[in-house]
Amino acid sequence: MPELEVQPTGLLYEGKAKSVYTTADQNELLVVYRDDMTAFNGGKHDIIANKGHLNARACKLFMTMLEEAGVATHFIRMVSETSMLVRKLHMIPLEIIVRNIAAGSLIVRYPFVEGQPLEPPTVTFDYKSDERGDPMIIPEFILALGIATAEELTLMRKTALQINTILKAFFDQSGIMLVDFKLEFGRSNGAIYLGDEISMDSMRLWDKETHESFDKDVYRLGKGDVIHAYTTLLDRILPLERRSS
Amino acid sequence: MPELEVQPTGLLYEGKAKSVYTTADQNELLVVYRDDMTAFNGGKHDIIANKGHLNARACKLFMTMLEEAGVATHFIRMVSETSMLVRKLHMIPLEIIVRNIAAGSLIVRYPFVEGQPLEPPTVTFDYKSDERGDPMIIPEFILALGIATAEELTLMRKTALQINTILKAFFDQSGIMLVDFKLEFGRSNGAIYLGDEISMDSMRLWDKETHESFDKDVYRLGKGDVIHAYTTLLDRILPLERRSS
Repeated sequence: MPELEVQPTGLLYEGKAKSVYTTADQNELLVVYRDDMTAFNGGKHDIIANKGHLNARACKLFMTMLEEAGVATHFIRMVSETSMLVRKLHMIPLEIIVRNIAAGSLIVRYPFVEGQPLEPPTVTFDYKSDERGDPMIIPEFILALGIATAEELTLMRKTALQINTILKAFFDQSGIMLVDFKLEFGRSNGAIYLGDEISMDSMRLWDKETHESFDKDVYRLGKGDVIHAYTTLLDRILPLERRSS
Repeated sequence: MPELEVQPTGLLYEGKAKSVYTTADQNELLVVYRDDMTAFNGGKHDIIANKGHLNARACKLFMTMLEEAGVATHFIRMVSETSMLVRKLHMIPLEIIVRNIAAGSLIVRYPFVEGQPLEPPTVTFDYKSDERGDPMIIPEFILALGIATAEELTLMRKTALQINTILKAFFDQSGIMLVDFKLEFGRSNGAIYLGDEISMDSMRLWDKETHESFDKDVYRLGKGDVIHAYTTLLDRILPLERRSS
């Protein structure tokens, strides 16, 4: 790792595509976006140059945008092109999935047609567990297991739909459809913050006209050059960021 | 098939453990309980003498009990020891699962402890599809797919909980815990009726003290003689039926 102005003091957690380090401030963590790309619960794995940088850049953009709209996120600031300082959270082991359009596991599991709009958008929860295969879980089971409180579930669902409204409108300006995306939340001092990442790894993004993918499906389904897809996406959306700042 | 007073006019549907025949009355079907026993979506299969008779007898008992309590069911009357006349329904492709105690797929999928009480009881829906493996489905997806209306979902959930209250109290008198069970509903002339079966094949039943199983898990998990288990159960609960009639 190159010399950073924030020094990691220890490796807290090594994820599939990110490494999380403690820092001198016990309330702050350093998240490093690596070039690892994985799919199918780690069943497919590659190192793809520049991938960490592209996702970190996207994540910074979305987290900043959401903070400005009043969503509490863990993002503090960028430390390098591939690393960011974040608020330390106690993560809730749930993936909150918002869907605007049927795709992915939804069309495998149920008789939805790929591309079928979901009106209103749906919010579902997956229980984060590699060994159990991240199964879908319903609020009643989340409560019975003590994974989150009813108030936290209500807040996460409401925030997820708010984020959907913001991101959908943002992508729409560039002719891109936000098909679905995944969020994770965590607790800090009794409050709930958006944690983890929002990036091309955690969303499905399609060109409005051609339905071309600009997300992890390019890698997952071997649809082409994932770096080209991610770069094309950033080229289309980053001018909007400059215009609005 | 022996001579019955209601004659089948054609085979409508051959299920894993029951065969359904049309009759001279287009609104009535003849359901024959076979001795086939299957588990794991047909992956395990045996012919077990007397099994059809025991399940038909149990189903008649429960359907009659529910009708008396005001639940609309498809049951009309028994035609033989293994066959019953039922109202023809347009089946809704959902399994409605009521759980009082964590067991089975719940402890495989989530970190519940087997035997952990669920307070209040939970109601979940599985989308009936052998090729998709009967995945759990949430109300939002059921509505988006047009599988059932919001009113039908509300009615099925309410009826399922009502059935749970009735059956739990009934089994409790014999020192048996109703762990969980599965229901299927169908439509006829704009109304919703309980269809399919309620039997040892569709419930989990444990002795209150020993947690011994009296249900399909005896076969599914190779825990012993399933006919002995089913007979023991009927011997424990049938005296109550006679008492109450």
